Amino acid sequence: MDDVTRPDTRYARGLRNLAAIDGEAGQRVIDALADIAPDFARLVIEFPFGDIYDRPGLDLRSREIATVAALAAMGNARPQLEVHLHAALNVGVSRAELIEILMQMAVYAGFPAALNALFAAKAVFSQRDAAGPDASGSDAALRDGVASGRAP
Amino acid sequence: MDDVTRPDTRYARGLRNLAAIDGEAGQRVIDALADIAPDFARLVIEFPFGDIYDRPGLDLRSREIATVAALAAMGNARPQLEVHLHAALNVGVSRAELIEILMQMAVYAGFPAALNALFAAKAVFSQRDAAGPDASGSDAALRDGVASGRAP
Amino acid sequence: MDDVTRPDTRYARGLRNLAAIDGEAGQRVIDALADIAPDFARLVIEFPFGDIYDRPGLDLRSREIATVAALAAMGNARPQLEVHLHAALNVGVSRAELIEILMQMAVYAGFPAALNALFAAKAVFSQRDAAGPDASGSDAALRDGVASGRAP
Amino acid sequence: MDDVTRPDTRYARGLRNLAAIDGEAGQRVIDALADIAPDFARLVIEFPFGDIYDRPGLDLRSREIATVAALAAMGNARPQLEVHLHAALNVGVSRAELIEILMQMAVYAGFPAALNALFAAKAVFSQRDAAGPDASGSDAALRDGVASGRAP
Amino acid sequence: MDDVTRPDTRYARGLRNLAAIDGEAGQRVIDALADIAPDFARLVIEFPFGDIYDRPGLDLRSREIATVAALAAMGNARPQLEVHLHAALNVGVSRAELIEILMQMAVYAGFPAALNALFAAKAVFSQRDAAGPDASGSDAALRDGVASGRAP
Amino acid sequence: MDDVTRPDTRYARGLRNLAAIDGEAGQRVIDALADIAPDFARLVIEFPFGDIYDRPGLDLRSREIATVAALAAMGNARPQLEVHLHAALNVGVSRAELIEILMQMAVYAGFPAALNALFAAKAVFSQRDAAGPDASGSDAALRDGVASGRAP
Repeated sequence: MDDVTRPDTRYARGLRNLAAIDGEAGQRVIDALADIAPDFARLVIEFPFGDIYDRPGLDLRSREIATVAALAAMGNARPQLEVHLHAALNVGVSRAELIEILMQMAVYAGFPAALNALFAAKAVFSQRDAAGPDASGSDAALRDGVASGRAP
Repeated sequence: MDDVTRPDTRYARGLRNLAAIDGEAGQRVIDALADIAPDFARLVIEFPFGDIYDRPGLDLRSREIATVAALAAMGNARPQLEVHLHAALNVGVSRAELIEILMQMAVYAGFPAALNALFAAKAVFSQRDAAGPDASGSDAALRDGVASGRAP
Repeated sequence: MDDVTRPDTRYARGLRNLAAIDGEAGQRVIDALADIAPDFARLVIEFPFGDIYDRPGLDLRSREIATVAALAAMGNARPQLEVHLHAALNVGVSRAELIEILMQMAVYAGFPAALNALFAAKAVFSQRDAAGPDASGSDAALRDGVASGRAP
Repeated sequence: MDDVTRPDTRYARGLRNLAAIDGEAGQRVIDALADIAPDFARLVIEFPFGDIYDRPGLDLRSREIATVAALAAMGNARPQLEVHLHAALNVGVSRAELIEILMQMAVYAGFPAALNALFAAKAVFSQRDAAGPDASGSDAALRDGVASGRAP
Repeated sequence: MDDVTRPDTRYARGLRNLAAIDGEAGQRVIDALADIAPDFARLVIEFPFGDIYDRPGLDLRSREIATVAALAAMGNARPQLEVHLHAALNVGVSRAELIEILMQMAVYAGFPAALNALFAAKAVFSQRDAAGPDASGSDAALRDGVASGRAP
Repeated sequence: MDDVTRPDTRYARGLRNLAAIDGEAGQRVIDALADIAPDFARLVIEFPFGDIYDRPGLDLRSREIATVAALAAMGNARPQLEVHLHAALNVGVSRAELIEILMQMAVYAGFPAALNALFAAKAVFSQRDAAGPDASGSDAALRDGVASGRAP
């Protein structure tokens, strides 16, 4: 068993957290880096997901609220905002709560940032609806299972 | 009773929410606007605090997590970040949780944004400590009373 | 007659200003919000257009110059920049003046921001030309009628 | 007479425009560059003031409205915002109009950007008031003389 | 011979530098401005390429490293980032070095900025590969010829 | 010997790189985090300095050019810009080259960003001059020793 796949390494923890939080969307980003910057793919798994999201001091629901708010306010990271709107739904933030968070960004980053983020949310919700009742039902299912603890 | 102070107006609701959330720090901002842009002072109370923070769809703890994350990530609003670090403590986010949120911003907005926000937090925590045991004790007291609902 | 459509409410004033300034482009944004964040559609009408653009202290021509400059300089709000390039033409800023404003942004926000904004203007001018002589003629027509006062 | 001071060079035109628009505040920036980047001092005079502000297609009042709006919205250029608040007053934008422009930025760049810009305006107005009745009276005097044309 | 094409004018120098650095990609930007803002096309050639890139105090390799890093960190100038990824390859920065620079931006501007820039690099590398062995071979060829001096 | 101080760990490598690159300025940042976010101090050493700056694919001179350009362009990280202006001098970038890099940022991020960065450089150069001939002489000394390789 090598250093990278030992279950207690940063990489292994990061991979587990990435799967639990970002799901397929996160994995697609990692795959797209494979032929151009494989070391960066590893660092994405190790630092954000192995170091930061793995820390016990803040629940994942709060972490995703913070991330969605930051990406919406920055206004120049649409692909990452979509990944984390999925992630927020995956860890138990409801669609209605996401809309509230994005509306609130109008106060801090202006109406254009809020509008563009709301249209990103509209696209994400449509993707999940198109994926069928199971997928969209899983918003609520996950909510019950995840909201109280950290990652599944 | 005129339109502005009727308890059910946006202004009256906003003033109540401002007091509950931002406390003295918020009021100082409003006061500082009085001689240069009194209409803007009114709009700050009416729109962010009367319209947005008054909405029932998201608890105040989540709202302040979103605001602190956004202001830290934007990196150009130090005075407002300090006001909302106070506000987050006022509505039940703990100091340790704030540190986690600001550390996480290194992932999305870079290490300088996270560092500068952490030093803003250091300044805010010192202010509260300097205000004596009652004030600093009130972090925890408020947490018990406020975290589950909206504003006191 | 309910509260929202009474001619003297913020909503009614905002709707009137939105139609006069942003025209169809503004209405399309409002419509696109209907199924995901109808309350935000209402707030867009009430706060920017009912509260801010309705204020008497600054003519609409100056307001649109300020908005176009800000959106070009921020560089992350292309859809809103296009809406307000239309709006500026609607309230009497000429195409040549818009080009000057966007060129000037190279000084404050850099050449990439200016270039991207100029290409947005190129797209907007083409849309208006494609809409036929009446629409493009209306740039000048509106200029005569609107520039001196506030909204028609 | 050398190339730099010939009255028809970009440098000479820029120097004239800098004096007319930014006044002493602009000259102080140029002076402060002398010992570290004198070539940049020359480029500041030649490009923004010799090339851009010298163009006939847009009046100086509109140019300063655009600049103040952009700097307020960007939110990370306080010294330059102060210089151009002075400049806007110098070319005929009134204090009340400046307040309107800055308030409007809350819509596009968020309330923190607007607040911080309003406090910059408060500082600039105080400086002008402290400089005595002549200096502050000159806001209006200049307005009458300058607003219709370009630079004095 | 008129003022614009004399070999010693800023315009002529800028045109030479633009061709050497940005190649066809730069020329396409200039061409696209022709019908909307021809004066700005001239200023792009004169100021960035005639004034700045022409200065002897910094080699072109270092200049392009600085530009690519800045555009990646700002995160809102994808077209210009692609032009300067080509330019960096043209003046002798290797693909592997560009990947390192973009990865490093995760530290200062966050992972989304680094990721989006890496995907821009992926697109640029593909364009050069699709242009055939000569074009992609020229990365290395140019490196040998250019890296030590300034522009060819 | 525990995990953190083993000479081959990310932390040990990061600490070595931090000392070689940022010198005392970097250590002061780490110290200032000790009482509020000690884990973040560790992550700053491990990720930027242990993971990124330790990679062999790009020389330190190029890394610091990229960092200084990015921080100047972002315009909201003055303390970090000062640290990395020191760092750039420490690894062999000359004062004259730094001025060129910062002037070039006027093209991409606007004149205010370039001006504010140039004034940061002025402050850094003064600090080094005030520290006496040895310290300021060490700019050149370090240049000879470091520029060709990676860290001393």
